[in-house]
Amino acid sequence: MDRPNQLNSRSMRYLTSSIRIRKTPFSKKVEASGAKAYTVYNHMLLPSYFNSIEEDYSHLKKAVQLWDVSCQRQVEIKGRDALHLLQLTTPRDLSRMDKDQCCYIPIVDDSGYILNDPIVIKLHDERYWVSLADSDMLYYFKGLASGFSLDVNLFEPDVYPLAIQGPKSKDLIEKVFGANIANTKFFRYKIIEFNERRMIICKTGWSHQSGFEIYLDGAGNGESLWDTLFDAGRDLDIRAGCPNLIERIEAGLLSYGTDINATHTPFEAGLGWCCDLDYNKQCLGVNALRLKQYPDRQIRPVAIDGPQIPGTDAYLSLEDSDGNHAGVISSVTWSPDFQINVAIGMINKSHWNAGTQLKLAIKDKLYSSTVQEQFWL
Amino acid sequence: MDRPNQLNSRSMRYLTSSIRIRKTPFSKKVEASGAKAYTVYNHMLLPSYFNSIEEDYSHLKKAVQLWDVSCQRQVEIKGRDALHLLQLTTPRDLSRMDKDQCCYIPIVDDSGYILNDPIVIKLHDERYWVSLADSDMLYYFKGLASGFSLDVNLFEPDVYPLAIQGPKSKDLIEKVFGANIANTKFFRYKIIEFNERRMIICKTGWSHQSGFEIYLDGAGNGESLWDTLFDAGRDLDIRAGCPNLIERIEAGLLSYGTDINATHTPFEAGLGWCCDLDYNKQCLGVNALRLKQYPDRQIRPVAIDGPQIPGTDAYLSLEDSDGNHAGVISSVTWSPDFQINVAIGMINKSHWNAGTQLKLAIKDKLYSSTVQEQFWL
Repeated sequence: MDRPNQLNSRSMRYLTSSIRIRKTPFSKKVEASGAKAYTVYNHMLLPSYFNSIEEDYSHLKKAVQLWDVSCQRQVEIKGRDALHLLQLTTPRDLSRMDKDQCCYIPIVDDSGYILNDPIVIKLHDERYWVSLADSDMLYYFKGLASGFSLDVNLFEPDVYPLAIQGPKSKDLIEKVFGANIANTKFFRYKIIEFNERRMIICKTGWSHQSGFEIYLDGAGNGESLWDTLFDAGRDLDIRAGCPNLIERIEAGLLSYGTDINATHTPFEAGLGWCCDLDYNKQCLGVNALRLKQYPDRQIRPVAIDGPQIPGTDAYLSLEDSDGNHAGVISSVTWSPDFQINVAIGMINKSHWNAGTQLKLAIKDKLYSSTVQEQFWL
Repeated sequence: MDRPNQLNSRSMRYLTSSIRIRKTPFSKKVEASGAKAYTVYNHMLLPSYFNSIEEDYSHLKKAVQLWDVSCQRQVEIKGRDALHLLQLTTPRDLSRMDKDQCCYIPIVDDSGYILNDPIVIKLHDERYWVSLADSDMLYYFKGLASGFSLDVNLFEPDVYPLAIQGPKSKDLIEKVFGANIANTKFFRYKIIEFNERRMIICKTGWSHQSGFEIYLDGAGNGESLWDTLFDAGRDLDIRAGCPNLIERIEAGLLSYGTDINATHTPFEAGLGWCCDLDYNKQCLGVNALRLKQYPDRQIRPVAIDGPQIPGTDAYLSLEDSDGNHAGVISSVTWSPDFQINVAIGMINKSHWNAGTQLKLAIKDKLYSSTVQEQFWL
């Protein structure tokens, strides 16, 4: 096994293999492609980098990568009450969702706190897939279905997302599946046929680069799907990749469990645009959310002057010049393209205006930082 | 960072640090004590060995170890309907549980499938802690509480179990907390005071050696509790340890996510003794479980002749001499004490009688195995 050559000098540990931490239909391909480190997400392996986070990043921004994001586990909700169950859990109004549509939804409890922030895919009126962030939402759905006596069937289908991300992703998809598929609109999906199986392909993905996600149907088809895409992409400089720390912070893509968790509301997470409180009154958290519409803290992009901040796996505290607590940084990394430390913070209302100057102390070293108007898009 | 010196030649990966994979109040102590590899359990770090699995094993069986099992995350259930909520989820009858009692309970869904197998601790009539195996049970409880309009408060308290395991654990507890505490009965608890906080100490633990679990109250007290126990245990040859693969297979301790999961019923898991179907009729799975009382497969100890089987992170298939499928092995390791490969299998009824001879093929090598009457206790 290769030693990791970097990782922002974060401390690294060895991960013991076990059945409990599931491999994916693509794991052999990922390993053969040189994944150097992993994380565990929904009880499943997710690679965290291949060459180095920086090399992966610059490649992602100019070419095309295959990402094994099987760990975005699926919950299938099927039955007469499928939409009702979903509407109990999210403030977003899904009533007018089209049959070829995907929606990003915060899922909240009855106090309005975020339990997950998945993508929901409408397969038909009584059948949805929920493509999860890192928590066992199937259990919440099961509890609600039992408690409200809902007519739904809930299970994890044999389906695994494979992401195709990067500016050349469209060329690759056109080459393999044709122009019609490659022209799928943002947050819409189409159907492809592969190995005689119909599969969903969505114009989605956890990067700000253009991209698609194929919902592999049937684990046994994983390696041939990977090979087909990889072979077709050789002249596009295709590589194996994974969600990239730098790129996702630049783009302001929130990581559930890192930037947001069950102590935050959608308003604090900057997801007020998902809260259709006047339209979806079924949501169990709707009354709580009405009272929490004007939060005292909210997600903000924060630029932190150089030098490069050492990687961290703990929250970092921000202060103003008078030593008042101003918020916390949850994700930070050096951006090679912007030549600054890019960060995601949960910033107090008193300090969240763009342009506010804040201080960050790490091991007796003081960094200057500025709340930004927008992410680095 | 040291390279791992073994691990039954299982493939090892690097684990990226992140906030999402939580550290514990004892993580610094665990790291300083030389943890060589980790797993992720309930979104939290759990060490998997220190010196080597074999050395840890033989030390565990003769001395005393401190285990950071903070990852056995707690759900606190508080309120008038606390017991009712628990009884909805488990077939075990908890109505006569004493106020100093801990119970091992399978938690099932309305189809009778196992969602978790925690220890529940009764703090008082309307207040319980559920000490979890690896799945987000808080979400199931939240869903049920909303759906059934239960009068409960559900949250994760600032509480982290620290296990003291091994034959000398009683000596250590007596030395630190006195004879009365050291004489706590199996699956009972008492109250200790530490750093001016009252904490629960249970006579429980995920080993077959004698042991205790202290429920650290307040993360800030973690390192001083660790140091207090460690200092007091020096003459007892105390070491940092963790749940041990060999010892737990010998003892038949099931790992949720490995040996059992949400495709198994308690009867298949050999947990029929937890199914009080005539007493706890509130359990949502009670009718389903009635129909599933006589399973077609069940957990069995399986002895596999030498040589030492290479570590595996996949299910291994068992066949009889005619090539018929007989079941699967989910956990297996070489036992230094019994000089045989000890294993946990889910064995078909047709082949589950003790003494049944089965074959196991691993990479063209054939091993002989025998279904056992009991685990290696």
